Parts: sequence; C-alpha cells; structure tokens
Amino acid sequence: MPGTPPTRFVYLGPEGTFTEAALRTIPAAERGLRTPARSVPEALEAVRAGEADAALVPLENSVGGAVPVTLDELVTGAPLVITREVVLPVEFVLGARQPTPLAAIRTIAAHPQASAQCRNWLRANAPDAVIVDVLSNAAAAISAAAGEHDAALCAPIGVSRNQLTVLADKVADHPDAVTRFALLTRPGRPAEPTGDDVTSLAVSIRRDQVGALLAVLTELAVRGINLSRIESRPTGEQLGTYVFFLDCTGHVAEPQLGEALQGLRRICADVRFLGSYPRHRLVQEAPVPSPPGLANADFADSAAWLAQVRAGETA
Amino acid sequence: MPGTPPTRFVYLGPEGTFTEAALRTIPAAERGLRTPARSVPEALEAVRAGEADAALVPLENSVGGAVPVTLDELVTGAPLVITREVVLPVEFVLGARQPTPLAAIRTIAAHPQASAQCRNWLRANAPDAVIVDVLSNAAAAISAAAGEHDAALCAPIGVSRNQLTVLADKVADHPDAVTRFALLTRPGRPAEPTGDDVTSLAVSIRRDQVGALLAVLTELAVRGINLSRIESRPTGEQLGTYVFFLDCTGHVAEPQLGEALQGLRRICADVRFLGSYPRHRLVQEAPVPSPPGLANADFADSAAWLAQVRAGETA
Amino acid sequence: MPGTPPTRFVYLGPEGTFTEAALRTIPAAERGLRTPARSVPEALEAVRAGEADAALVPLENSVGGAVPVTLDELVTGAPLVITREVVLPVEFVLGARQPTPLAAIRTIAAHPQASAQCRNWLRANAPDAVIVDVLSNAAAAISAAAGEHDAALCAPIGVSRNQLTVLADKVADHPDAVTRFALLTRPGRPAEPTGDDVTSLAVSIRRDQVGALLAVLTELAVRGINLSRIESRPTGEQLGTYVFFLDCTGHVAEPQLGEALQGLRRICADVRFLGSYPRHRLVQEAPVPSPPGLANADFADSAAWLAQVRAGETA
Amino acid sequence: MPGTPPTRFVYLGPEGTFTEAALRTIPAAERGLRTPARSVPEALEAVRAGEADAALVPLENSVGGAVPVTLDELVTGAPLVITREVVLPVEFVLGARQPTPLAAIRTIAAHPQASAQCRNWLRANAPDAVIVDVLSNAAAAISAAAGEHDAALCAPIGVSRNQLTVLADKVADHPDAVTRFALLTRPGRPAEPTGDDVTSLAVSIRRDQVGALLAVLTELAVRGINLSRIESRPTGEQLGTYVFFLDCTGHVAEPQLGEALQGLRRICADVRFLGSYPRHRLVQEAPVPSPPGLANADFADSAAWLAQVRAGETA
Repeated sequence: MPGTPPTRFVYLGPEGTFTEAALRTIPAAERGLRTPARSVPEALEAVRAGEADAALVPLENSVGGAVPVTLDELVTGAPLVITREVVLPVEFVLGARQPTPLAAIRTIAAHPQASAQCRNWLRANAPDAVIVDVLSNAAAAISAAAGEHDAALCAPIGVSRNQLTVLADKVADHPDAVTRFALLTRPGRPAEPTGDDVTSLAVSIRRDQVGALLAVLTELAVRGINLSRIESRPTGEQLGTYVFFLDCTGHVAEPQLGEALQGLRRICADVRFLGSYPRHRLVQEAPVPSPPGLANADFADSAAWLAQVRAGETA
Repeated sequence: MPGTPPTRFVYLGPEGTFTEAALRTIPAAERGLRTPARSVPEALEAVRAGEADAALVPLENSVGGAVPVTLDELVTGAPLVITREVVLPVEFVLGARQPTPLAAIRTIAAHPQASAQCRNWLRANAPDAVIVDVLSNAAAAISAAAGEHDAALCAPIGVSRNQLTVLADKVADHPDAVTRFALLTRPGRPAEPTGDDVTSLAVSIRRDQVGALLAVLTELAVRGINLSRIESRPTGEQLGTYVFFLDCTGHVAEPQLGEALQGLRRICADVRFLGSYPRHRLVQEAPVPSPPGLANADFADSAAWLAQVRAGETA
Repeated sequence: MPGTPPTRFVYLGPEGTFTEAALRTIPAAERGLRTPARSVPEALEAVRAGEADAALVPLENSVGGAVPVTLDELVTGAPLVITREVVLPVEFVLGARQPTPLAAIRTIAAHPQASAQCRNWLRANAPDAVIVDVLSNAAAAISAAAGEHDAALCAPIGVSRNQLTVLADKVADHPDAVTRFALLTRPGRPAEPTGDDVTSLAVSIRRDQVGALLAVLTELAVRGINLSRIESRPTGEQLGTYVFFLDCTGHVAEPQLGEALQGLRRICADVRFLGSYPRHRLVQEAPVPSPPGLANADFADSAAWLAQVRAGETA
Repeated sequence: MPGTPPTRFVYLGPEGTFTEAALRTIPAAERGLRTPARSVPEALEAVRAGEADAALVPLENSVGGAVPVTLDELVTGAPLVITREVVLPVEFVLGARQPTPLAAIRTIAAHPQASAQCRNWLRANAPDAVIVDVLSNAAAAISAAAGEHDAALCAPIGVSRNQLTVLADKVADHPDAVTRFALLTRPGRPAEPTGDDVTSLAVSIRRDQVGALLAVLTELAVRGINLSRIESRPTGEQLGTYVFFLDCTGHVAEPQLGEALQGLRRICADVRFLGSYPRHRLVQEAPVPSPPGLANADFADSAAWLAQVRAGETA
C-alpha cells in the first residue's frame, strides 16, 4: 500500500555481510523484520510476490563497479522502484579464530571482489599468505571460524557473528571506497522532492550507438540535468546492444526532470522509471547548481511566459 | 479587439506597388479601408496607435532577401504580431506611355531592387537602354507616365494606375521569384492551429555566436521543429551582435512548439513572439512530417506517461 | 601576380563617400591609382578582368546590416578573396552651402540608409525639416551644393569635395556605429597568420535548415572556432534556401581552422573560401582565447601523439 | 619484437575452459606454446614481463556483460594492445561421470555466470536439481568427475579433459550468446587496415558526465565513427568517476579515425589506445557504410581541397 512505511524487509544474504549492515542503518528496518535472501533475484521476487515490503540489494561499488545481477533484475520482470539509497564505506576486517601475527598466516579466505579491493594491502601486510577464493564475505568468516583457513577477509558484522578476533581493521586499498545499496519496493507515488534527489532510469536505445546515445544525452543536457552514474549492460540479444542505467540529478515531480523524462520517452526504444529518492551523502556537500536558465524556477517562469503568449496577453 | 476581423488596413505605399496588390488578395482588405503609408515604420505606427487595425508590409523576397526595415521595426517599439502571410509571385512589367519597340528605348526608370531582379532580362532584351535608379516601383511608373523616361520597370498595378502600355510582362530573371508580406496587428490570442502553420520569432543571443546559436538550434531540433527561415540582423550595438529572425514550423498552441519556445525563453537573452499563422503555399505541397517520435501525438503520449509515472501508477 | 602588392585600386563610387575614405586609409592605395566604380558588381568585374588589382567595397554596417549586393557578388562569378578589411566609424556630417541655423532648414537630402542611422538625431535637432531621399551620400552633398536642398547628410569627404559648410559633425544615433569594407583581389596564397585573423566563408547547406545548420556549427564548435559574423542570404531559388556567410576566428594556414574547413567541405553542399586576413580592430582588445584543449598548440600536440600511436611507439 | 608473430601464448586458465577453446582457434597458438594463467592479471603480467608473447583473456559476454578485471587491467600498468579478437558461441554442456537421466540429477556444479546464462534451461530441464556454485567452469567439470556432484555445467573442452559423458549439449538460454576474447601483446605498429576493423580505446573524462560524454560522442559523430561497444568502469576514486571503454569502427591508420582520435586526445583527461584489429564476424555481414560525406575517401578529398585553398590555387 503506497504511503505505508515498509515493515517486512528482505536483503541479500547471508547474514553477516555488508548488505545486512547497510539495512540496519535504516531505522524502520532496525525495528522491522529482516530476512536474508540467497540471491538478488530471490530478494526481489519476495517483494514482487508481496511476501516482503522492501528489499535491500547492492547496486554498485566505487571500486568493483556495478552489480550486474541487480541491474539485470531491475529491467526484467514486474517493475520495482528505488525508494531509498544507502551508501556504506567499504572497510574490511581481517579476522581469525585467535590472535595471530600477520606473518604467521598461511591462508586467507576471501570473496574475489574483497581480495581485489584489498590487493595492495594484502601484498604489503601478508605477502606470503595464499588467498583462497570463497563465494561470499560471510562464507569467508565462517570458514575461518571453522578452522578451514587461518584468517578471513570479511565485513565487520561477520566478525561479531562468528566470534572472530580482529587482526586488522579498515582494510582497503582505496580509503574512500563505498558500496551503494538500493531499497526496492513495488511502484507507488514517489516521496516529495527534497531538493537533493536522484532519479534512476533504465533506457534502451536502438543500435546506432553514437547517434542514439548522443540524442539521449542531449535530451538531458538541454534541460540542465546532470548524470551521477551511467552504466551500460548488454540486453543479452547480441554484442553491441545495450540498456543504459542512468542516475540523474533531480526528482520526477520537478518540471526540469519531468520534461527531460518525456523527451527520453519519445526518442528511446524503452524507458523504465526506477525511482526518485533522496541522495545519500556521506560527506555533506552542496548539490551542483543548475546551469544558467535551467533551474526549476526558470522552468516555471518559461511556462508562465508561454501561457501568456498563448493567451495573446504579451508578445 | 482580439477576435474582431480588421477593417482598417494600412500598407507600404505608394499606391500601385506589389504591396497594394498583395493586400487586395485578402478579402477583408478588399472590402475594407486601405490606406498607403510612406514607410514601413509609418505603417506599423498606425497600427500601434490604433489608427489602423492591420498593416501589410513586405518581409522578404526570394531574390533580394529580407527587408531590413521591417525586421528592425518588429523588434523595437510596442509588440505587434503577424496574423497572416501573403506570398506573391514577382512579375514585373515594362510599361511606357505608348507602344515602343524595345530596341528604341533609351532610358528605363526602375527601383534598384527591381532592376537587380531583372538584370539578365534587361541585358538580353534592352541592352542599350540606360537604367535610371528611382526610389520605388510606383515612382518608376509615374516617371514614365510623365515622359521623364522612355519606359518603367514596375508592378502590373502601376501600369493600370498610370494608363501605361505594357511592352513586356512577366519580366523576371527567376521565374519562381516571390515576395512574402506580413499582415501585422496588435497582440491577441492566435487563431487555432490549422496543421500547417508558421511561428515567427525574434531571438537575441549573447555574444559567443557558435555556442549560443548551437544552443538555440538544439532547443528546436530536440523537439523536431524545423526552420523555414533564419535571418540575422545586427542589433546596432556593435559588429557581431545579432538578433535572429526564425520562422518555425508549427503553432504556439501545439505542445511541440510550446515546449521549444519555453526552451528558447530559458536560454536566450530575449525572445519576442511574432505570431503563429497559416502557411501560405502558392503550390500545394504536403507539410514536412515530424521526425520519428516528435509529432504532436508523441508529445501528448509522453505527457500522459509522465503523469502516470508521477502518480506511481506505472514504472 | 600573387605576392605583388596591388597598385591599381577600384572602389564603390562615387567619389566623396565613406568607401573612398576607407580606401585612403590603406597606404598602398593612397600612393596608387584609385578609380571609382558605379556599382559593386562593376568594381568586382574590374578585378576579375584584370583591369584593377584590388577592389574596396562595403561588406556590412553595424546598424544597417550586410550589404546584400556585395555578398551576392562574392558567391557568383569567378572567385575573389578578401585580403584586407577596413573598419571605419560612421560619422555623418550635416553640410550646407552656407552657415545656417538648424531651425531654419526646411529640406535635407540624404541617402535612406544615412537618414535611418541618424533618425533620432534628426528628430531632436531638425524636427521640422523634410528628409528627401537621394541615391547616395555623394548625391546628397552634390544636391546641397547645387542648392536643390537646404542641407545634406553626407560623409565628411563629401563636404570638402563640394565646398560645403559643416553645420554639425559626428552625427549618428549610435556613437559606435561602424562600416566594414573588404579589399578583394584575385585568389592567391594568403598572407602569413598574424595570430589575430579572420577567415571568411560562404557555405551552402541542403534544405533541412535545423539539422544542416546544426552540423555546420558543430564542425566549428568541435574545433574551438568562434564566429564573429553569420549572415544568411537567399540563393534566389526559392524561399528558405540559403547561403550562409561566416566570419571565423583564425587563419586557413592554422591546423585548427584547417581541420574545421575540411569538415565543412565534407558535409556542406558547397563551401567557398573567401579569404584569411588580419582582423582590423579600432579598439585594441585581446583576441578571445581558445577553449581548453582547442588552441593551435593542442592540435599540434594531438597530431604528434597520433603519429606515435600509429608508429606503435606508445599506447 | 613488433612484426614477429607470437609463439608463446598465455591464457586465462585453468585448462578446459572456453578461453582455451578460443585460443586454439588461432593457428599460431595451435602450433605454439600455450600456458594457462591463474588469473587475468597474471596472464597480462606474463606478457608485460616478456615471459609470453601474447595473452588471450575474455573481454565481454553478450549475456553477462564486460569482464571487469580485464578492463581494469587494461588501464593500469604498462600498456598492452589488442591485436586480435576471437568471438566464440557460448554453448555449455551438461556433463556427468556416467549416463544419467536428467530427472535423477540432484546436484549440478556450475560457475555462477554459467548457471545465470542457463537459468531457464535448468528450470525447464532439471527443475529439482540444486545448483552448487563453484569458482570456474573447469572446477565444475572436475568436481563432477570426482563425484562431488552429480553433474557439471561446463565448456565442451571440460568434458573431454575429464572423460565426462555429455547429458545435454548446446545448453544456453540465449542461442546466440557469445563471448569475446582479446589477444594482447606489448605495443607495436598495428597491422594494416583490412576495411573492417575495430579500434579499442579507454577514455577518461572529467566529472561533469553529461557535458563531457556529449563532447566525446560528438568528436566521434562529427567524423562518422560508430561505436560497437561502450562500457563504463569506475576509476576507483569515488562514485560517479568513470573510464569509458569504446570500440570504434575503423583503424588508427585511417584518416577518419585518426582525426577523431586526435579530437578525443584534445578534450579528454586521458585517452589510452588499446589497438586496431580486424573485426571477427561469426556471421558474414557487410560493414556499416559511413554517413554521406564521411567515408575515408571524403577525408582524402577534403584534405586535397584544403591544400589547394592554402596554396591559393582555388577559392
């Protein structure tokens, strides 16, 4: 029911990963029911089927890039919309069953994306350890707790859940690395604009990439809309056919973005609206101002002027 | 009073020129009062002052180009709008007091623009005649009637008014040459769209010509608006500062042109609306279809889609 | 013969107009032979026929706009190129046979473009005088000298030639009004770049105005070329078909403009090169700097980089 | 040594995957030395260090999208260039130790990307089997051969290497799915153009996405260059900062692409050339023709014209 805050949350499991940590930053989720799902498709299916009110899944990582399965799921099946984003600093910990000098560690269990983001740190601090690929951050922690490996590279939440000892914390090659998560619900009227919002879209273009992509960007540029993200994903049909995921500055209820959306709708093979929601900023910074003449107030002014011209009241 | 058909017409005189001939193609003017003015500014002033309901003045000629004084007058002083255009084939006649073989003519009175449009014809048919510049087509006819010159290059209407004999008719280097006239009134609600309309604008841009003019054309192109005319006029301030006169396909009441107009309003230093009115076609030809996705129906469709998205009814 | 300075000059006459005054600012013309022509076409024909080395004709006026006959002549007939521009302040004088109080003047002879540029001054200073149209500034001075009219609005040079008394000087509504003249010769290798040059072009586009003109401007913008002038002229074929006259910043010998010219050549129906020559500045002002990455040095750098990439020396 | 065909090949291992199969389609590799590497970085490091002449690694999959690690490696460390691409149909097989009815299979080992590409097939044909994630296609085959799981979803080459029985072949949800591999070497002069080439680039833009990406695409569009691929990857610095991977039609030795490359070099923060090489087409289809005026011949024509203009030979 639109307007009713969600109470039943599902998230990409297992328990003890960054996604659970991200979910728990949302007060309603901290109070509500939290159920891990085995995969992103399973999480989204739970919302589509009405078994959950909202799903939290990872969208992208500032080092590893987009999470393909999430993007692919968002453009197939029944529509879902993003109602909230959560940006979480990526800070791995190195955990072990007991205190161990780094030099004594022979094997470290890690999800390949985790070890990729800590490659330099591992090379500098545990040069002799063998990195063993496992299938999730949680699996890494569990395997270290079970004694299968000497240590695990995992999320802080994995340490507490498995009673591990922290050998090193804030492990990351990029100190500013973050992961961005999306809270997805069934479609409903978006919340009111806050003045610092993001609107997510999936846009399918026809095959002539240069011309069609130029046209998409021109529709945005003409209305002064900026992009904070652009990702291409294959449509699965053939090489070179893409759907683009765009994160635009602004809110669908605003005239500026509304006009741009209409323009995209006219020229693109398909546009799927994926939600307007407040931007989550870890560091407070002012939104980028609109180019001259392209603020929402200018759109209102030009609409008023056109009304006068149409009425013959002015020329 | 908007809606009331004009009955008092003023036009660029003197009597006996192409402008009077153009005015008399308008039924209401044929029935109404027709007063010649000594100049374009005088004609327009009469309408601004309420002494006339409408003024017919030349806008451009397919050979000679724009009529600068008309353009300059349209962007200074109180606003006026074009409510009708008249396109008239340019066909001069060579008239004289009595029948004369062309070879016997020694002097021909002609307005410089008239002789310029008939240069090749004159060279071929009256190679020995001296062309004497006079200040209007009507003055040419009058001077021939007065015996000051052997013949006059003038409008057909000048022959009948001055009891001249036609030595040659349909005189013109370009058989398809036309002059385009505008009927100007005080601002009022434009007539309904006909499906084949023109909208005239005067657009002032800031000094960076390439960037600013690119931006203007992009606002039009993005909405599928085509131009049938573009003229630049200096603003009088310094070399390189222009106001552009644009004739756009479409009507201000249509969504396509309305959105483009708002876009121009936002980015230009100034936009003056100069009227939406039916295109006058001498030869019937179908209007150019809109590019794919950019017809008025597509604008209506995209507006309906946006309304749904905003209501949360679809995504 | 390219490289030989011209010695025989022709100019738009009659004697005693601004064009003669402009010609005499060129040292070689002050020393050489100066012959007035009756018209712009006659002046250009003299150069084409080899009877003169160079012709000075007016190109545009900051108030009155382009001089259509000059533009039309530049795109028809054998090619000519601009080798020099002269910019002259427009300062009319009011001359009479004898000293006369302004209030006592009943008739003033004036070329219509001259009276148009002094309309406000005349209204304020000689409100009761009748303005009588004549066919040139020189004709105005001559008619005043002949006693046909009480005074003449003319060029300073017309006063001295006709022994008139100056009743008022620096007469002009726009104190900064200027006229720009072009010195035309038969084609030859352009002089070396000076760092502050203009390149003039005549560009014919196909009928889809918005798209074709956008493409022309994009070719320039992509290379950081700015326009100091853009004028459209009808081709004479039908309404809505234009040739555009462009004055670009830069010199044909420079890589930046050279690449832009090649781009125009590829996409336009026709491009006529009308010369690269030093910009004449009445007031010293620095040339506009190129946008970031688009200076001539950047073109040289990118060419060197490409040569390395092609040689496999770097990637 | 540029020009010397490679003889020592390294590829993304383990043995028995699609990458090995792709490598063996290259005659020189079939004859030469083929060494599996444990990871893409390890394979590329071998070439950089001179221990191998060329490395074959996966670039992208028409269903799964880009292979992030390959893209990231291509823009860090010493430059490597693509000298050849191999496109291979994706056809998984379901293999087992002995012939087994599909209905009797309880567990299937599969790499997550493999099971994702066969999800519908698995649901339809083995609805009751549990899919067990493993870390590579080869690992899946090995685990089935070891009896750890009832069957494996793997590459055909994995079946023969592990003496498995084929329960089903050509398993794939998208019958046209392909994987594209790149053969990488140290930089050298590219092979001659074939008339149907691809040029790969990595382009870093500054932060204003819409404007900067518009500028990149405009540089290509103005020269008639089309894109067959565009991928964005985060730079790792912060969300919203990207490097774009572009596959352009054409060859660096051609004027059309050469000019476009220079344009990108001028406006982008960084451009890395990743090679010009023949397009590998599974199905013969004609290359897309250049837009009017933008073929290589038109570039040659416009260069010749400019040379004439600069020499003063024509105007």
